[in-house]
Amino acid sequence: MDNHELTPKSEIDARIRNLQKALNEASIDGAVITQFVDLFYFTGTSQSGHLFVPAHGSPVLLIRKSYTRALKESSIENIVEMKSMKEVPAAAYAAGKMAKLGFELDVIPYNTYKFYAKLFGESEITDISPIIKNIRAIKSPYEIGMMKKSAAVLDAAFSEVPAMIKTGMKEIELASRFEATLRSRGYGGGARMRAFNQDFFYGNVNTGASGSVPTYFDGPVGGPGLSPANNPGGAGWKEIGKDEVVYIDYTCVISGYTTDCARIFATGKLTDRLIEAHRISLEIQNETTSMMKPGINCMDVYDKSVEIAKKYGLENNYMGIGPDRVKFLGHGVGLELDEFPIFAKGLELELKPGMTFAMEPKFVFEEGAIGTENTFVMTETGPEALTLSTEDITYI
Amino acid sequence: MDNHELTPKSEIDARIRNLQKALNEASIDGAVITQFVDLFYFTGTSQSGHLFVPAHGSPVLLIRKSYTRALKESSIENIVEMKSMKEVPAAAYAAGKMAKLGFELDVIPYNTYKFYAKLFGESEITDISPIIKNIRAIKSPYEIGMMKKSAAVLDAAFSEVPAMIKTGMKEIELASRFEATLRSRGYGGGARMRAFNQDFFYGNVNTGASGSVPTYFDGPVGGPGLSPANNPGGAGWKEIGKDEVVYIDYTCVISGYTTDCARIFATGKLTDRLIEAHRISLEIQNETTSMMKPGINCMDVYDKSVEIAKKYGLENNYMGIGPDRVKFLGHGVGLELDEFPIFAKGLELELKPGMTFAMEPKFVFEEGAIGTENTFVMTETGPEALTLSTEDITYI
Repeated sequence: MDNHELTPKSEIDARIRNLQKALNEASIDGAVITQFVDLFYFTGTSQSGHLFVPAHGSPVLLIRKSYTRALKESSIENIVEMKSMKEVPAAAYAAGKMAKLGFELDVIPYNTYKFYAKLFGESEITDISPIIKNIRAIKSPYEIGMMKKSAAVLDAAFSEVPAMIKTGMKEIELASRFEATLRSRGYGGGARMRAFNQDFFYGNVNTGASGSVPTYFDGPVGGPGLSPANNPGGAGWKEIGKDEVVYIDYTCVISGYTTDCARIFATGKLTDRLIEAHRISLEIQNETTSMMKPGINCMDVYDKSVEIAKKYGLENNYMGIGPDRVKFLGHGVGLELDEFPIFAKGLELELKPGMTFAMEPKFVFEEGAIGTENTFVMTETGPEALTLSTEDITYI
Repeated sequence: MDNHELTPKSEIDARIRNLQKALNEASIDGAVITQFVDLFYFTGTSQSGHLFVPAHGSPVLLIRKSYTRALKESSIENIVEMKSMKEVPAAAYAAGKMAKLGFELDVIPYNTYKFYAKLFGESEITDISPIIKNIRAIKSPYEIGMMKKSAAVLDAAFSEVPAMIKTGMKEIELASRFEATLRSRGYGGGARMRAFNQDFFYGNVNTGASGSVPTYFDGPVGGPGLSPANNPGGAGWKEIGKDEVVYIDYTCVISGYTTDCARIFATGKLTDRLIEAHRISLEIQNETTSMMKPGINCMDVYDKSVEIAKKYGLENNYMGIGPDRVKFLGHGVGLELDEFPIFAKGLELELKPGMTFAMEPKFVFEEGAIGTENTFVMTETGPEALTLSTEDITYI
């Protein structure tokens, strides 16, 4: 497999049109896009630079490095080799009066903002990150095809897990083998998170009690990780014992598109409550996906899941344990791991066709973490799963 | 190996003292630290939260998630479980008048800054990122010990490369095996870059002409990567051929501490100019490290390296090829990959004992990338290499 497939011009054109429509509706005269992910989305290349999109007219892509590569990858017609940052406002102001200019103020650091504010002194700078997030939340059929390729790699990797697990091996050894499987099939670098300080690396292998170790990350399952320093979560140094749950929750990033999936393995017998909690996870998945119709409020889906956990007396183990529980059930995935929609407590968001998201009903007990996670695409009639490997507990 | 070693209290105390001294010198009344890396540096835990450090008095660590884990990992005496962000200004203002409060404005996104500015309405918010970077640039003997552990893992991984390389295998297969070796020995998540939009994943395996493919990254060698989307650099889908240079440049992150090293392998014969350029890389390394005494200006070190490349008529192939060359020779490494010092064109910076940095004289030709890279610690008398595997070209 070679993923150097270029984003079709028709895709790029449609995305730019969507952005221009939203700029017009918000009375913003133009947008300056610079974050790698947004740049890739709107141009087809992640080469370093700035994309200027006027509310009316043609975009200009100004590339710092590498110009020759951007020329090959992007279907934007006007691509310029940029020597100085001053060329960006020059390009913008050549397109007309830019009283209001949009920037990605959710990710641009304050010091960088100050630099831009001076550079674009003729304009009021405004935040267009909600506009961008809303556009990107609705995936085109082309993008859904890319998501399916990403999910297929996860499915293939999970099918190899039974041959990888041996009791006595360290969690990190299993993780490194699982990651190598993903990587050699095209995992193209870290799953990106847009939110500040929400760092993430590949995913989690947690066995037995490791699954109950809490961490900083806004997810239901933590794990000890390899040190207290960076990414202190996921696989640690613990040896995999007999009669333990092996919880594997990983992302896959193929050609930029992220999918997310969790599966459960067991080295012998599991406790009754783990087995029952796994069944309840599948029940929650079934009940919540059944209620998903276009237009439904995402917070109602989360509330439904809590209601089921409560019915079984498991609310204190649902989505984490004790004080370290998180208050969501699912999150949008695409070019980033934390896209719209979010299925969370008190967050009103309308579910729309074309949205892709991971649903992850999980439970955590002293003896381990268990549950399920799948990536779905929302269709006109309901959600369709993209991750397709067996959800039964696989006993090794 | 288990890297869940906790940062000693004496280290944390000294770091906080250094910060308080700098705050006092700059007439700043207190600091609010929130970025994961800085938080780990000043507290010993990366759990999500805020550290308030008054210019005089004791720090308060307010933890959002996970409080129980932060209690185990950090030697800060006053650790508080935080339920609301309002508790951070409350803790700060309880310590006295905070006319001027320092934040990490190089990394905090603009929207987050606006939130803080409102929350800390009684204070003028000021940037303390230069203060933090300067403190972190000087490593303690404890930190140098951590860097040595990180370098030893890289050395061990490079020693296994000859057994991994087979002609006909894809670059990404070799990369996935090399990464699995690092990972199973404790590579704890992505090497972090502080600069906005400077994303990075593990490192590069480039074979033959792949080494001449340019990319967005501010490094001498690019590579095709796996797709035009995220991290479009490093190993790609190309098969490793006969008589090709195999350029391997990787980071290692152990307990948060990053080292960086490049080594050269060959599947048969290399062109004369590649072999000669490799020799010149070692000459540049030797000449530039010989001139490094405490107090030297880092830009003079860079200029010396360019002078040597020019002497051999290779200035157009030094640190990249043609328009995609970069204008630096080395960069600080530690908890992040882009620390002080920087050895770059026109950048005045004083080299000091305790600094740790990677020096990477490299050349790029149509038939491939070649050179060397090592991580050093600056001592009172000169630089000492931490990465120690053979720098000869290893012929497979």
